[in-house]
Amino acid sequence: MASTTSASAPESEIRKRVPIPPADPVLPPPPVLKPNYVHISEQPYTLANWYKHINWLNVVLIIIIPVAGCTAAVFTPLCTKTAVWAFFYYAMTGMSITAGYHRLWAHRSYNAKLPLRIVLAAFGGGAVEGSIRWWAAGHRVHHRYTDTDRDPYNVRRGLLYSHLGWMVFVKNPKKAGRVDISDLNADPVVRWQHRNYVLVLVVMAFLFPMCVAGLGWGDWKGGLFWAGIARMTVVHHATFCVNSLAHWIGDQPFDDRRSPRDHVLTALVTFGEGYHNFHHEFPSDYRNAIIWYQYDPTKWTIWLMKKIGLASDLKTFSQNAIEQGIVQQRQKKLDKWRSRLNWGVPLEQLPVIEFEEFQEQAKERALVLIAGVVHDVTNFVESHPGGKALIQSGIGKDATAVFNGGVYEHSNAAHNLLATMRVGVIRGGMEVEIWKQAHREHKDTVIAQD
Amino acid sequence: MASTTSASAPESEIRKRVPIPPADPVLPPPPVLKPNYVHISEQPYTLANWYKHINWLNVVLIIIIPVAGCTAAVFTPLCTKTAVWAFFYYAMTGMSITAGYHRLWAHRSYNAKLPLRIVLAAFGGGAVEGSIRWWAAGHRVHHRYTDTDRDPYNVRRGLLYSHLGWMVFVKNPKKAGRVDISDLNADPVVRWQHRNYVLVLVVMAFLFPMCVAGLGWGDWKGGLFWAGIARMTVVHHATFCVNSLAHWIGDQPFDDRRSPRDHVLTALVTFGEGYHNFHHEFPSDYRNAIIWYQYDPTKWTIWLMKKIGLASDLKTFSQNAIEQGIVQQRQKKLDKWRSRLNWGVPLEQLPVIEFEEFQEQAKERALVLIAGVVHDVTNFVESHPGGKALIQSGIGKDATAVFNGGVYEHSNAAHNLLATMRVGVIRGGMEVEIWKQAHREHKDTVIAQD
Ligand code: HEM
Ligand code: HEM
Ligand SMILES: [Fe+2]
Ligand SMILES: [Fe+2]
Ligand SMILES: [Fe+2]
Ligand SMILES: [Fe+2]
Repeated sequence: MASTTSASAPESEIRKRVPIPPADPVLPPPPVLKPNYVHISEQPYTLANWYKHINWLNVVLIIIIPVAGCTAAVFTPLCTKTAVWAFFYYAMTGMSITAGYHRLWAHRSYNAKLPLRIVLAAFGGGAVEGSIRWWAAGHRVHHRYTDTDRDPYNVRRGLLYSHLGWMVFVKNPKKAGRVDISDLNADPVVRWQHRNYVLVLVVMAFLFPMCVAGLGWGDWKGGLFWAGIARMTVVHHATFCVNSLAHWIGDQPFDDRRSPRDHVLTALVTFGEGYHNFHHEFPSDYRNAIIWYQYDPTKWTIWLMKKIGLASDLKTFSQNAIEQGIVQQRQKKLDKWRSRLNWGVPLEQLPVIEFEEFQEQAKERALVLIAGVVHDVTNFVESHPGGKALIQSGIGKDATAVFNGGVYEHSNAAHNLLATMRVGVIRGGMEVEIWKQAHREHKDTVIAQD
Repeated sequence: MASTTSASAPESEIRKRVPIPPADPVLPPPPVLKPNYVHISEQPYTLANWYKHINWLNVVLIIIIPVAGCTAAVFTPLCTKTAVWAFFYYAMTGMSITAGYHRLWAHRSYNAKLPLRIVLAAFGGGAVEGSIRWWAAGHRVHHRYTDTDRDPYNVRRGLLYSHLGWMVFVKNPKKAGRVDISDLNADPVVRWQHRNYVLVLVVMAFLFPMCVAGLGWGDWKGGLFWAGIARMTVVHHATFCVNSLAHWIGDQPFDDRRSPRDHVLTALVTFGEGYHNFHHEFPSDYRNAIIWYQYDPTKWTIWLMKKIGLASDLKTFSQNAIEQGIVQQRQKKLDKWRSRLNWGVPLEQLPVIEFEEFQEQAKERALVLIAGVVHDVTNFVESHPGGKALIQSGIGKDATAVFNGGVYEHSNAAHNLLATMRVGVIRGGMEVEIWKQAHREHKDTVIAQD
């Protein structure tokens, strides 16, 4: 049945949680704990143990080989044919990571026929980012525990950590998150590639690109260093950017509770994976970009594979759910903006005064009564767009009707401005209602002066 | 004291309104009505009276002279010097309308020293759009009664009407709106230009541009037809676009209750007056565009005039009021968008069922209880991004804690999606609360399976 990757939570974590029943079909039994054992990652760095903190296999694959190979490439003449082939192979292996490792296997956002799966597994292996099984499991953990300690490429630990560092340092497997990968184990292509990963890596990353250039136009050296290692290095950093840059720069149109962001630059570098805010909200959508002009070649490729019959069941989230996210996110931003503006003293905090008192005070400063609220317009009389005379005609009076269409139906802006000039509330304050009633009954109540 | 333009409202209008007290200092006494008189604009068009419907003076100025003059221009060779002069004079006369007639006199958005006022009155006269007094009064009416019958260039009567038609047809002065123009009458430049308008028109529109070209480089004919009449025609239609196009195409970032709109194309044609939605909300602001990269050369000119000491007291609305408008308008659009989406059946419309009934029904369809609400996830099990096994583990159970972090803290999108799957409410429905309490008290209540 279901299987899981890596071990489970440490003792202290377990105590805080409710116990796991052993009969659970999806998750493994609780781990047997060795009480005094401290994992290397929990120990301080010393001269004696520092090398144990380093994952040397990864260091060789993502730092030493790339540095050595790129140095060699610089001293290898680059002929046009090899350049074109390197670029083409870069796109092939890169897209096998995004369309294969990521959208197909990690997220099952579509189904792929056997030939396509074999191609994606082979070229994806040539990108030197681990087996599908390892990669997809880690990626699922990343989605499940984004931005937490259990997130393997937790961006909260820094940009460099999420880009590379996470592979360089040895981690405590007990701290890793767990996910269901039964569907991956059920795929023979995944199983075969995982078992024979070293072979796949050597052949697809180095031998194949070298042989194509060597047998094709005799450029064995260029094939190895340019189409092989330099190309691999570029694919590495391009796809690593999804874990670093896409959690660092850009907008958050769908949700801002977690770090993923949408940015066209990241998308350009990562074959369309840069619309990462969308992707974390709607992970099983085969698209990362939803607008036609956004750059998502991985989406276009999957769509093309469907057209030629190699892919099917392309999953999309409902347009409704996507728009709900946008609406809520915009609402959040709008609320933040609104709270920074001055909307006037809240009515319930204003002093309540009598109408007579209002009239008395209006002799000293320019007070206007509108809709039961007293406004001090002293500083506005001179700059009133409707003229000094008109606004002065309302001083010491109930100008509700005058303000609301009796003389001029003031704009929304005028109402906003007015609210910022509030200074008091009139006891009773029902003059408007009286006027409205009189108006309805065609009585000659002279309140509006027009 | 205050004076007003044109006559007042017709009888029927007056009856509906509250009477006007004769002592009003700003408005004139109620009109004496001739009971049986019907104004020409209220009469049907007949063969005998059609010519009375036409304002022939305007037709000559804005149609006949332009058509005749432009025809003549086509047969007049255009030399480079005259072309440059015509373009320069086009900008001078056009900007005298926008910076002078409009922003200075109609809206008093800044103060101008006498020399600047004289220049603006002279070149503005050369645009052949009437005297300052007539133009600014009509424009104030337009702002006060935008989109209503009293709006002289009411765009609701059609694009062509608001562009030209309003000047071609005779209107009932009783239907015109009234505004305070006491400040205009107090300006000697305005008074002088109004009294001598025919002289100003002939000299500044035709003789002056002709003499510059004639005395300057001997091109009398080109000066009259190109820099005079063709130039005037272009200024006409450019500035008329503020009344037509700016009420027709573009966005409404500040308020959408009335027709004015912001559009960069209109702005390009009208020396920056195309940000008309802003302008109608904040009419006494000397700017029409507020963002630095927006095209508003009229604003730049006024700002320059201030720098050289010819203008002062440049009025702006508070940034707070401007942002309030944007926030409210965005809120409106967002509310409209929100109301078009599916947010699930409102809780109060859902049937209330017993927990036992829920368990019973869950044997037939995939029902999950979350936060006291029953959800039918039958159609979602297959496409659940977290896998089929996990979602199935919640069927027939209270999955509140599991859904909210127990196994996975679902995204905002998942919550939205969930709401659209609501089918019932559980009586009581307090399981969550019980779980939370047990969790706080470290009791071994097995509800969350992680
Ligand atoms: C109390 C008597 C008042 C009268 C009779 C009156 C009349 C008018 C008129 C006729 C206009 C149109 C000007 C035009 O566009 O040409 C106007 C505009 C305006 N008035 Fe008043 N006003 C009054 C009070 C106020 C007050 C207290 C405020 C304070 C916020 C205010 C704010 C505005 C604003 C912002 C405009 C610009 C156009 C708009 O945004 O609607 N007015 N007023
Ligand atoms: C009832 C038990 C459930 C469990 C244990 C569960 C578990 C999970 C897990 C572990 C993931 C993470 C998958 C990944 O990113 O790799 C996930 C994702 C998701 N689940 Fe569930 N789920 C349950 C029910 C539901 C239900 C009823 C819905 C209905 C809306 C739902 C909607 C989603 C969605 C939309 C995602 C995608 C990621 C996100 O938007 O948060 N789940 N679920
Ligand atoms: Fe991510
Ligand atoms: Fe992903
Ligand atoms: Fe307008
Ligand atoms: Fe205006």
